[in-house]
Amino acid sequence: MAEAVRVKNIGLRGVTVADTKISFIDGDQGILIYRGYRIEELAERSTYMETAYLLLNGVLPSQPQLETFTRQVKAAREIPKFLTESFKLWPREASPMDVLQASVPILALDDPDLPAETREAVLRKAIRLIARFPAAVAAWHRIRRGLEPLPPDDRLSHAANFLWQLNGTLPDEEMARDLDVCLVLHADHTFNASTFACREITSTRAHMYAAVAGGVGALSGSLHGGANAQVLKMLRGLENEKDLAGWVRKQLDQGQRIMGMGHAVYKTADPRGKFLKEIGSRLGRKFGQEKWPRLSSELEKTAVQEFERRGQAMIKPNVDFFSAPVYHLMGFPGDLMTPVFAVARIAGWCAHIIEEAFAEAQEKPALYRPKAEYVGHYCGLTGCSYEPLEMRQ
Amino acid sequence: MAEAVRVKNIGLRGVTVADTKISFIDGDQGILIYRGYRIEELAERSTYMETAYLLLNGVLPSQPQLETFTRQVKAAREIPKFLTESFKLWPREASPMDVLQASVPILALDDPDLPAETREAVLRKAIRLIARFPAAVAAWHRIRRGLEPLPPDDRLSHAANFLWQLNGTLPDEEMARDLDVCLVLHADHTFNASTFACREITSTRAHMYAAVAGGVGALSGSLHGGANAQVLKMLRGLENEKDLAGWVRKQLDQGQRIMGMGHAVYKTADPRGKFLKEIGSRLGRKFGQEKWPRLSSELEKTAVQEFERRGQAMIKPNVDFFSAPVYHLMGFPGDLMTPVFAVARIAGWCAHIIEEAFAEAQEKPALYRPKAEYVGHYCGLTGCSYEPLEMRQ
Repeated sequence: MAEAVRVKNIGLRGVTVADTKISFIDGDQGILIYRGYRIEELAERSTYMETAYLLLNGVLPSQPQLETFTRQVKAAREIPKFLTESFKLWPREASPMDVLQASVPILALDDPDLPAETREAVLRKAIRLIARFPAAVAAWHRIRRGLEPLPPDDRLSHAANFLWQLNGTLPDEEMARDLDVCLVLHADHTFNASTFACREITSTRAHMYAAVAGGVGALSGSLHGGANAQVLKMLRGLENEKDLAGWVRKQLDQGQRIMGMGHAVYKTADPRGKFLKEIGSRLGRKFGQEKWPRLSSELEKTAVQEFERRGQAMIKPNVDFFSAPVYHLMGFPGDLMTPVFAVARIAGWCAHIIEEAFAEAQEKPALYRPKAEYVGHYCGLTGCSYEPLEMRQ
Repeated sequence: MAEAVRVKNIGLRGVTVADTKISFIDGDQGILIYRGYRIEELAERSTYMETAYLLLNGVLPSQPQLETFTRQVKAAREIPKFLTESFKLWPREASPMDVLQASVPILALDDPDLPAETREAVLRKAIRLIARFPAAVAAWHRIRRGLEPLPPDDRLSHAANFLWQLNGTLPDEEMARDLDVCLVLHADHTFNASTFACREITSTRAHMYAAVAGGVGALSGSLHGGANAQVLKMLRGLENEKDLAGWVRKQLDQGQRIMGMGHAVYKTADPRGKFLKEIGSRLGRKFGQEKWPRLSSELEKTAVQEFERRGQAMIKPNVDFFSAPVYHLMGFPGDLMTPVFAVARIAGWCAHIIEEAFAEAQEKPALYRPKAEYVGHYCGLTGCSYEPLEMRQ
């Protein structure tokens, strides 16, 4: 047991709570590493399947290992009929993040390994979750539009199949590859709020699905994964804004945020931004929709300048700032942006859950159980006197 | 921003992470206080409706306030048909905790206040969750047995209506009162793992249902709420054990736990145990099933003596040790014990979510975002060199 430590009301910022072998961020230099590899290298040369394998297993796969892993994921893509039939009963205006959160424990009911807690069984659960997240998001998006869900297509890559199941048309290869890069970029990010939720829930020995459902809940928050949807809303509102600088100043003067600006960890450029900006520009040109990357880029410059002018040079655009225009150009509606984030992050969540569940450090007490300081109504340890109901005013 | 603090791999034990006005534990003296009032006083003189009001609002209600609150909860008891119709599609062997976790975001879809974040709207969401948790647990338990869910009965108290919706028979008043006391005893317990999950998820500005689903996930773990089901399993296995002392010694010699023994916070008797023991004895006598409270009591004495002999006198039975025989005598099957815990704890979760969402301390950064120390594969900040797939062994 440690000595009493007080880190009150700071959201555990700067507080190191655990060891991890999964990923590493140098926030001052803008470096993100998965399992030793720079995110730039993985974005350029890897695929989401390979990156997911790397995150889960700690090493890059050999060719046969990657083939087996990809085959396992493909084989697990089909979601149970009792999930899609349930979807058909729910209100069509439901938020896709609420639907995804509900889907996770329902998918648990279809997992033959659910009660098994060996490392092999937990890895199989992770493979099923990685395979089924895009399928569940796509199925809901079709059902809410009155369409039937589509079966997966085994010939297609992870990203291409997601677009196919969502839209019912074969995506062009370049866009599928762009989406795959986006999934690689979002696959993990150390102890962010959703990953910490997954680990914290796992520490009670709850199963992987119970923990992932908590992660989905945390990701839905507008200060976490929900931010990309907010960024899109902001960009749409600024489509005809002539005076971006004036708008930024007014927002900040009124104590409002610029959505997608600032990060708990990076104090310089987010290393993922460069790739998303490139993809955004390319898609903009391709679809004759260059106004979106242009607006995003102008807003970035304007906001960064204004923050610098205010002595807040460390506030830079984060990954959500750049992903929103990209996903918009890929055809995702605003309320699917955070689910797309989840489709990527599921690999990282599962890796962290496995690390938490099989942690080698035996000195770690079983579960997260912090303290709080009681600052409420208090009449000493004997307690306040309980006035009978009929006597109360 | 705080200075760097390292509290690695201790599950935040002894680490004070926030202020709270909701509840307080003195683990050395075995004292539990809700909003200033001793748990003993509330167990003896209050009801679950009053305690829920107290937790949510910070003060005991006047008679008209309690009447209004109770009326609001009763009015919200009915769960949407699309939830029960979904239940009918799911495998009957599904764990009730998985089903409850799935139910939470599905219930969100029926909440007209879902997007509203005023304090009044969030309180209405809490009232709906408190009302609907027992209804959802009861509906699943009926549907999995091939029975139709029952409508709530407005003449019945919270606990009595739960038993009615579950069993389809009017419970005797004494047992309903006993269950009500159990709900009071389990309604809150400061920053336990599930409550911390709720607060952590809320810190991203996710809505109340998204956070509560995470809480349900954490509670399901066998080191948290799932423990009461484990205790029952243990007691059942010991029904014909002649040599309890020998069994306890063997367990401990083999490095096994005695389920329900030890707590992260209490180093002395859990103040809730006394009430549960009394209820257990009374129900045992009433139903001619005294073997269960007797076995529980003998195991307690034997285990405590053995822990003392081993210099671990601080290991005492916790609330799950005592609640398991009580719920068993009330007729709850083993896999409903943790859901009954959730039916109680929902009031505390909602109170903590409201506190987190409307925290006065403006210095608190928006969301929980701890650090981890990277101890994995590392080739410096330039990253490990990425060997092309076809070159890998």
